[in-house]
Amino acid sequence: MMDLLDEPVPGVGTYEDFNTIDWVREKSKDRDRHREIASQSKESTWAFIMSIHDAFSGWLLMLLVGLKAGALAGWIDIAAHWMTDLKEGVCLSGFWFNHEHCCWNSKETTFQERDKCPNWKSWAELLIGYNNGPLAYIMNYLMYVCWALFFSFLAVSLVRSFAPYACGSGIPEIKTILSGFIIRGYLGKWTLMIKTITLVLAVSSGLSLGKEGPLVHVACCCGNILCHLFTKYRKNEAKRREVLSAAAAVGVSVAFGAPIGGVLFSLEEVSYYFPLKTLWRSFFAALVAAFTLRSINPFGNSRLVLFYVEFHSPWRKTTRLGQYPVLEVLVVTAITAVLAFPNSYTRMSTSELISELFNDCGLLDSSQLCNYSNVSDIKLSGNTLPDRPASHDVYMAMWQLALALIFKMLITVVTFGMKIPSGLFIPSMAVGAIAGRLLGVGMEQLAYYHHDWVIFKGWCSPGADCITPGLYAMVGAAACLGGVTRMTVSLVVIMFELTGGLEYIVPLMAATMTSKWVADALGREGIYEAHIRLNGYPFLEPKEEFSHKTLAMDVMRPRRSDPPVSIITQDGMSVEEVEALIADTSYSGFPVVVSQESQRLVGFVLRRDLVVSIENARQRQEGVVSTSRIFFTEYTPPQPPNCPPPLKLRGIMDLSPFTVTDHTPMDIVVDIFRKLGLRQCLVTHNGRLLGIITKKDILKHMAQIANRDPDSILFN
Amino acid sequence: MMDLLDEPVPGVGTYEDFNTIDWVREKSKDRDRHREIASQSKESTWAFIMSIHDAFSGWLLMLLVGLKAGALAGWIDIAAHWMTDLKEGVCLSGFWFNHEHCCWNSKETTFQERDKCPNWKSWAELLIGYNNGPLAYIMNYLMYVCWALFFSFLAVSLVRSFAPYACGSGIPEIKTILSGFIIRGYLGKWTLMIKTITLVLAVSSGLSLGKEGPLVHVACCCGNILCHLFTKYRKNEAKRREVLSAAAAVGVSVAFGAPIGGVLFSLEEVSYYFPLKTLWRSFFAALVAAFTLRSINPFGNSRLVLFYVEFHSPWRKTTRLGQYPVLEVLVVTAITAVLAFPNSYTRMSTSELISELFNDCGLLDSSQLCNYSNVSDIKLSGNTLPDRPASHDVYMAMWQLALALIFKMLITVVTFGMKIPSGLFIPSMAVGAIAGRLLGVGMEQLAYYHHDWVIFKGWCSPGADCITPGLYAMVGAAACLGGVTRMTVSLVVIMFELTGGLEYIVPLMAATMTSKWVADALGREGIYEAHIRLNGYPFLEPKEEFSHKTLAMDVMRPRRSDPPVSIITQDGMSVEEVEALIADTSYSGFPVVVSQESQRLVGFVLRRDLVVSIENARQRQEGVVSTSRIFFTEYTPPQPPNCPPPLKLRGIMDLSPFTVTDHTPMDIVVDIFRKLGLRQCLVTHNGRLLGIITKKDILKHMAQIANRDPDSILFN
Repeated sequence: MMDLLDEPVPGVGTYEDFNTIDWVREKSKDRDRHREIASQSKESTWAFIMSIHDAFSGWLLMLLVGLKAGALAGWIDIAAHWMTDLKEGVCLSGFWFNHEHCCWNSKETTFQERDKCPNWKSWAELLIGYNNGPLAYIMNYLMYVCWALFFSFLAVSLVRSFAPYACGSGIPEIKTILSGFIIRGYLGKWTLMIKTITLVLAVSSGLSLGKEGPLVHVACCCGNILCHLFTKYRKNEAKRREVLSAAAAVGVSVAFGAPIGGVLFSLEEVSYYFPLKTLWRSFFAALVAAFTLRSINPFGNSRLVLFYVEFHSPWRKTTRLGQYPVLEVLVVTAITAVLAFPNSYTRMSTSELISELFNDCGLLDSSQLCNYSNVSDIKLSGNTLPDRPASHDVYMAMWQLALALIFKMLITVVTFGMKIPSGLFIPSMAVGAIAGRLLGVGMEQLAYYHHDWVIFKGWCSPGADCITPGLYAMVGAAACLGGVTRMTVSLVVIMFELTGGLEYIVPLMAATMTSKWVADALGREGIYEAHIRLNGYPFLEPKEEFSHKTLAMDVMRPRRSDPPVSIITQDGMSVEEVEALIADTSYSGFPVVVSQESQRLVGFVLRRDLVVSIENARQRQEGVVSTSRIFFTEYTPPQPPNCPPPLKLRGIMDLSPFTVTDHTPMDIVVDIFRKLGLRQCLVTHNGRLLGIITKKDILKHMAQIANRDPDSILFN
Repeated sequence: MMDLLDEPVPGVGTYEDFNTIDWVREKSKDRDRHREIASQSKESTWAFIMSIHDAFSGWLLMLLVGLKAGALAGWIDIAAHWMTDLKEGVCLSGFWFNHEHCCWNSKETTFQERDKCPNWKSWAELLIGYNNGPLAYIMNYLMYVCWALFFSFLAVSLVRSFAPYACGSGIPEIKTILSGFIIRGYLGKWTLMIKTITLVLAVSSGLSLGKEGPLVHVACCCGNILCHLFTKYRKNEAKRREVLSAAAAVGVSVAFGAPIGGVLFSLEEVSYYFPLKTLWRSFFAALVAAFTLRSINPFGNSRLVLFYVEFHSPWRKTTRLGQYPVLEVLVVTAITAVLAFPNSYTRMSTSELISELFNDCGLLDSSQLCNYSNVSDIKLSGNTLPDRPASHDVYMAMWQLALALIFKMLITVVTFGMKIPSGLFIPSMAVGAIAGRLLGVGMEQLAYYHHDWVIFKGWCSPGADCITPGLYAMVGAAACLGGVTRMTVSLVVIMFELTGGLEYIVPLMAATMTSKWVADALGREGIYEAHIRLNGYPFLEPKEEFSHKTLAMDVMRPRRSDPPVSIITQDGMSVEEVEALIADTSYSGFPVVVSQESQRLVGFVLRRDLVVSIENARQRQEGVVSTSRIFFTEYTPPQPPNCPPPLKLRGIMDLSPFTVTDHTPMDIVVDIFRKLGLRQCLVTHNGRLLGIITKKDILKHMAQIANRDPDSILFN
């Protein structure tokens, strides 16, 4: 007779789609595997080499993830840059050059002339031969809108046809997956391929979105796909999530060129289970990725220190237009393109805009924003310029910025929920930076004209540089992004990795803390949590405390009026009885007890494992019929001669199910579920089994307490 | 009859010294308190105000901790600076000025002459009237040694007489306390006062130690003392540990001027339980502290960006000298002072040394280390100087540095274990920086003389600036400190907050990862873990995986050969029986079961609570005598008329004790203990109570597996 303990039945121990994993079981499985390798390694040289390979496979995998994600991010940068410029014109010396690259090759060497190098032709120049006058303007305008529509149409069609999971930023789903949920295909190769391509298209179309959030999704796809190279990670859902946590760090690392910010983002914002080992590995992977990206990036701007970035992430809300995703995208693109082109601050890419807003005006700066009136008796002390009165140009720039602010705020809200890859980081930073710069220039002018006011007295003498509008923009960007995502430490680190502005750490920290407090006072949920709740994913928020005084017995199933819990006895049931139990109920697992009378708990068996094992036994094990008895005991008593052979299933039973007493306060139960990553927990009273609590029960209970619909919790 | 449920007996729910707290119980207590306040707040305006005060008390406390620790650190800085200079001379315009401050006030304005301003007199000048020649040198030497001996004698005497807990860096003990251990007085006001004073003395004595590690202890003392202002934190050990985690971050924040590095240090290195709420609060407190320190520091060096720092932390090992702590300190101080004075690199304070080693040589740099031979055809490209051949001066400096390296390595190892406040950060950084600078200068000379070698080819042309020795020193310092403490992310952040060198993030990350790998390969324990183990503290290391295939039944008490576990039945025992049980055993708690026969578990009652309650009932509750029966049941059956009144103790029983089955693998049990912060856990088999596992049992089991003496685990 075959013993099921020896050879695992295929399918036992795996999960179905849209289900929650059991962290404890997965980690226990991995430790078993580890022990087996360790004990084998003493037997042969080959096994010893394999054990070393196993020990280093984690680091090797991190290396590969860093390399692949860094390379992809570099490719996306280059492609998006080229296609963004394609909306405005084309390079004659080679259509594959972007504007900057095209003009680098040209002979014009002064900085000013680079923009107007002869090889780069705007569409008006190409089509009608000149670039001045209203006709050329309209021609350029038209081509700009057409390209934008073409790109966004291509993007939304590709997403719809090949990979619906590729839309949005993906961060809320990744958060849910990291908390132990299974969404098959969300991190697969199709999603990766389509997301990479459509991300370039969406960014190039000029929509108010960024590529940084989606890059986190791209990096996680890389991590998930590369997991298949190593048995250790392919077969274990918990181990794979450690890799995904690190991959999320890699994503932010390549998006912002901020390796440490990436690690902290993964820790603070997306990860659920983040042991120190994952911290070190994330750190390593983020480093490799940043290094790879820097080696690839042919534009040579040292992204690691200077500001060079764009990125955002969306929040879904269904509008009427939302039912026609392609139309929705085209309409929004058209509006964006039509409104953005005339205003130079919305026409430029959002990252350029932010970079210009952060910039402090130097003496040689020629931008409109820096064209202050020159005062005759300017005193230069080192590199700082004193506060100067604003000229007509600056006031014009202020008006344009104010319009850009309103436009960005409105269009970003609409762009969020569309079915294309999109992120929210850069649009929110842009909104904050514009508001900050406006305030900064206002303060500067106040200080210039009213330096005798109380608030300026003592520290702001006439002719000194009191107010730096660029710093206001930086702080505004951090505050706005902080309010949207509720990041704190990771945001500050990203900001100063981005800008190199280590000296501004105090205002940045103050701004993020304040914006977090204000935002929390208005509503405790960040954008990702809101998104998770709207989608009904099963996510036990680790940030919120459970504060109600309910006990385990109030939440467990069965309720007091319900029939008792469905159980299996350890030696009293036949195959057909168990099959009837499975058919009658939809529970995902059954407690095993000593006997119906005593109700003393022996273990827990999962529905899926039970179904697979019985099916397997019926096919492969001789003589197992419907009347065969199923045994979960350690020793099977000798069967009478005329009985069919018994089915021994102790191997699939969890001998150490988690139990709590019926008097355990729910806050402790929630804590246990969160910290140990449980899927279910049994409830006992004085040693007798009473009921069961699943993650779904807890989420429903929490929804009920918060006066939300408990049926909005869809998954287990 | 008084019901014990209504009024808590004083002493119930508290802990004894050198015991481990139960995190679950403490957190549950806090949630109860929170619920009570929330429900009361609806009743009256005063209660509503109190509830708001309660909600903000956490942030308020953080503000106070930040202010106090920042102020103390500023005071320590100033005092240590003054006393360090006192060893060399005194200021005539006011003895309370240090050298720098004294010469600031003088009229000499050029940079070179500041050091020799007339108001500052060396001891030789004061005593014999001139400062040249061998006699003056000897005089200065002698005074230097005398002051050093005086300071260190004062320090060790104060520590011995008033606060023995003030010695060392305190970080290992703080780690243990944060993991849930109780050491009364370790964070008390005496420790704070003595540590602050002796820290200044120890640093000023010139011993090879730093003040940064002890500052963490000082900040934690501030946090602990300020907790007494708020009931919420005074009465709850778990809540107080959240404050201490934040205080540790504050300590590093003020020690290095690195607020973010401080938060990460607390997270990565010292904290055990670090929820996101604590992250945000640590961040806030670290910010306040850094700001306070910056406002106080009268030297005006913007510590937040530039390198300006010293700190270290010790490892105890008993030598024969160690039995005479005062003598030990005096001998080590004498050796240090005598050997340090003649070598200029050991005479300067360690932080100055590190600062000089990190420094890149500019054209105007006059230090010995930068006195390269000038090549006639020097080409200046921007600010960078090309590699130049070393002069005699540089070679001399190299020899002195090599001697300093040997001296520092040896003397630091000895200084570690002494009974004075001492830290290890700065000495290890100094050792690493010296080694790095030596290597850097070596490479530079190689590159200069052999720029045709393969390793230099392609990127190092003659006359270019290929090698930056200062960067080698910085990387060396990070690598050395990383190897000693095994910090990774926090170390890199501290390093770049310290140096402002954001562009060197890649070499810094590579160095810390490499040094962690190498150090882990040589031995998995960092210095703090080693210290904790040597002291026998009960600390469940969260970084190490438990990988043995033992089950709960192998570790639990009683062992198979032992008598069964000591239990209390829920309604069958009299006061004298329970008292006899308490007297006969030394267990810290007893399981309560339904009856001796069924052994079905009802709850768990702690020894201390039981003793306190019985004593209290005997004194205050009428008629309770030795024959009174003790009831743990919900309803007390009516007693026969001639019986003494019963004692109802359900209120002190934990109705939701943690249970695992006997078949639970120990790796899962260890995980539960770590993540939930348990003190003990009951073991059942098929619903019957079998035994108990305490934290001490687990630590003993782990010691046994690692072939260490299980009796080295002293505390529970």
